[in-house]
Amino acid sequence: MKSDIIILGHGSGGKLSHQLLDDVIIPRLSGLPQRDQNDAAVLTHGGRRLAFTTDSYVVDPIFFPGGDIGDLAVNGTVNDLAMSGARPLYLSVGLILEEGLPIVDLERILDSMKSAAAAAGVTIVAGDTKVVPRGKADKIFINTAGIGVFDHDFDIRGSGARIGDKILVNGAIGDHGMAVLAGREGLDLHSEIKSDTAPLHELVAELIAGIGTGLHVLRDPTRGGVATTLKEIALQSNVDLTLDETALPVNEAVRGACAILGLDPLYVANEGKLLALVAPEAAEDALALMQRHPTGKGAAIIGEVSDASTGRVYLRTAIGGLRAVEMLAGEQLPRIC
Amino acid sequence: MKSDIIILGHGSGGKLSHQLLDDVIIPRLSGLPQRDQNDAAVLTHGGRRLAFTTDSYVVDPIFFPGGDIGDLAVNGTVNDLAMSGARPLYLSVGLILEEGLPIVDLERILDSMKSAAAAAGVTIVAGDTKVVPRGKADKIFINTAGIGVFDHDFDIRGSGARIGDKILVNGAIGDHGMAVLAGREGLDLHSEIKSDTAPLHELVAELIAGIGTGLHVLRDPTRGGVATTLKEIALQSNVDLTLDETALPVNEAVRGACAILGLDPLYVANEGKLLALVAPEAAEDALALMQRHPTGKGAAIIGEVSDASTGRVYLRTAIGGLRAVEMLAGEQLPRIC
Ligand SMILES: Nc1ncnc2c1ncn2[C@@H]1O[C@H](COP(=O)(O)OP(=O)(O)OP(=O)(O)O)[C@@H](O)[C@H]1O
Ligand SMILES: Nc1ncnc2c1ncn2[C@@H]1O[C@H](COP(=O)(O)OP(=O)(O)OP(=O)(O)O)[C@@H](O)[C@H]1O
Ligand SMILES: [Mg+2]
Ligand SMILES: [Mg+2]
Ligand SMILES: [Mg+2]
Ligand SMILES: [Mg+2]
Ligand SMILES: [Mg+2]
Ligand SMILES: [Mg+2]
Repeated sequence: MKSDIIILGHGSGGKLSHQLLDDVIIPRLSGLPQRDQNDAAVLTHGGRRLAFTTDSYVVDPIFFPGGDIGDLAVNGTVNDLAMSGARPLYLSVGLILEEGLPIVDLERILDSMKSAAAAAGVTIVAGDTKVVPRGKADKIFINTAGIGVFDHDFDIRGSGARIGDKILVNGAIGDHGMAVLAGREGLDLHSEIKSDTAPLHELVAELIAGIGTGLHVLRDPTRGGVATTLKEIALQSNVDLTLDETALPVNEAVRGACAILGLDPLYVANEGKLLALVAPEAAEDALALMQRHPTGKGAAIIGEVSDASTGRVYLRTAIGGLRAVEMLAGEQLPRIC
Repeated sequence: MKSDIIILGHGSGGKLSHQLLDDVIIPRLSGLPQRDQNDAAVLTHGGRRLAFTTDSYVVDPIFFPGGDIGDLAVNGTVNDLAMSGARPLYLSVGLILEEGLPIVDLERILDSMKSAAAAAGVTIVAGDTKVVPRGKADKIFINTAGIGVFDHDFDIRGSGARIGDKILVNGAIGDHGMAVLAGREGLDLHSEIKSDTAPLHELVAELIAGIGTGLHVLRDPTRGGVATTLKEIALQSNVDLTLDETALPVNEAVRGACAILGLDPLYVANEGKLLALVAPEAAEDALALMQRHPTGKGAAIIGEVSDASTGRVYLRTAIGGLRAVEMLAGEQLPRIC
C-alpha cells in the first residue's frame, strides 16, 4: 500500500524515491520519461549545448570524516555535470540556515566550498541565503545548481548502454556512506573510513579524450549506491547487466563495518565514484587511463552488458551463483548527502 | 556587537543580511563587489549572454491568500531573471521534504508550480528531492535556479542609475508580506489582502521593447521591501534617491493592517512588483506602458535620482519633510518567502 505522507524512504534514492518521482513529481514538473532522467539536463543555446543540474544537501552530521556538507555540495553538482559529459563552469548556492548556527561553523563550511570550487575550476556566480527559526531546519541545508559546457559532440547518457559494453568503476565503493555513519554520534566505526567526496570532471575529460565515442554511459552512484544506479541504467537503456561480485573494489574497513551493521556496500552511497559503460574494445584503455588518474587509482572492470533486454541486473556471486539485484528498498541510511 | 550565531535578522534581506553577505559569505563564495550583486548573474557562453540565478523558499505558511510556496518559487526565480533583462527559459527545482508531509499537500504545491511555470513560459528541466526526519525541516523548502537568455544588448543592472532618472513601481506595495502574515495561524487581518505573486518577465519585455536604453535599473523589492531595495540601488549606483510618500501606491487594507501592526509598507515584501529606474524622457512612456499591462495597472512614478552621489535615500513626506530611508533593520517578518 502506498503511503499518503512523505516517509524517509522517499529520500533514499532507491525504489520509493523512484515511485514518488514517477507518480507524483515528474508528471507535474519536468514530464521527462525515465529514459531521459539523467544526472544533468542538456539544453541548447545558440546552437551550443549546455548542461544544467541541481542537488540539495541535507547530510547529518554536517562535518564528517573526509569532508563536510560544503565540499559535498560543490563536488556533487560538479559531478552531475561531468556525468553528462560537460565541463562544469558555474555554480549557484542556496543556503538555508537554522537560527543558532554558529558563525564559525558557517565559515568553515563556506571555506570548504571555496576550496572545492577552486579545485574543480568552477565559479560561484549567484546565491541566496535564508534563515529559519530554531527547530525548523537542521543547522544548514545547501542547494547548488550548476551549468556546464560541452567541448565535444558525443552523447553520454543513461540510455546509451549497448550489448557487450563493459562496466567500470573508478575505485572502492561505499566509503562516503560509511564515513557519514561513522561521523554520527554514538557510532564508533573504523576511524580509517573517510568520505570519497571528490570532483570527477577531470577523470571524465580524460575518458572523453581517450576513448571518445567508446564512452556510452556515465553516472555517479550516490544515494542508493552502485546497485540502484546500475538498475536505473539497465531500465533506461533496456539492457541486462551482470556484475562480478569478486571484481567489486571495497575497502577492508568498509567491508568490515558493513558486515557488522548488516549493510551491503552495493547499496551504500558514494560521492567520488563513477560508473562508466564503455564499448568492449575500449575497456582496457579506459581502465588504464583511470588507474593513472588520482581519482581512479582503484578502478576496476566490474561487469558487462549481457545480450538480454529486460532491464535486469544480476550479481555473479563469489561461489558462481547468479542473484537478481534490485533498487534500494526502504531507507537504510537517511540524510547521507 | 556582532552576533556569533545566526539570528533571524540574517535572513531579513535588510541590514543584517547584507552584513552577513559582505563579511562572511560573499568573500568566500562569489567574491563579487556589492556593485555587481544583482538579481541574476550574467554569463557569456559562445559570445552570447545568459542569466543565472537562484532562490530558496521557506515561507510559512506554505499556503497563503493569493498563492503558495510553489508558485512563489517559480515566479521568484522568473522575476530575478527578468530583472537582469533576460527572457526566463529553464528552471531547476530542489525539494527538501519533511517526513510526514501529506502527499496531497505536495501535489497541490507541485500543481501550482506546474501552472506557474506554464504561465511564465519556463520549462523545469532538472530537479532533486531530499527527505529529512520529522522536526528537521518545516513541511517543505523549495529551491529554484533559473537560466534566461537575452534578446537585446542593453545592460540593465543595479549600478545603472543616473542623475535625473525617474523611479517607477508597477503597483501597490506590501501585499505579499501582509498576505503571508494574514495566513499565519491566529492572525485575522483583512481577508481581502492577497499575495501579489506574479511573473514579471512580460512586463519587462514590454519595457525593453518600449523604452530600450532608457531602462537603466530593474529590481524586484522582495525581502526588505521597497525601502531596502532602493537603498541597495543607491549604493550600487552611488547616487541619491528621493521618494515621494504621497505617490507610493498602497492598498487600503494593507495600509490599515500595517498601521495596526506597526509596520511600514515600505519595508514589507512584494513578490509581483518591480522598481524601474528610467531616463526622465522615457518615464511617461514607461508609465503608460506599465498601466496598459495586467501586472502594471497600478503603476506610479514614485521618485527620482537627485544630483548628489552619497548613496542615500530620502522620503519626501506628505507634510513636506525629508526623512532618510535606511535598509530594514532587525527582522520584522520572518519566513516571508
Ligand atoms: N549564499 C550566497 N552565495 C553567493 N551569493 C549570494 C548568496 N546569498 C546571496 N547572494 C548574492 O547576494 C545578492 C543579494 O541576494 P538576495 O537573495 O538578497 O537577492 P534576491 O534574490 O533578489 O532577493 P530575495 O532572496 O529576497 O528574492 C545577489 O547578487 C545574490 O547572488
Ligand atoms: N523535484 C524534482 N523535479 C524534477 N525532476 C526531478 C526532481 N527530483 C529529481 N528529479 C530528476 O530525477 C532524476 C534523478 O534525480 P536524483 O536526484 O536521484 O539524481 P542525482 O542527483 O544524480 O542523485 P543524488 O541526488 O543522489 O546525487 C534526475 O533526472 C532529476 O533531474
Ligand atoms: Mg548523479
Ligand atoms: Mg547528484
Ligand atoms: Mg535571493
Ligand atoms: Mg530579486
Ligand atoms: Mg529573489
Ligand atoms: Mg539529485
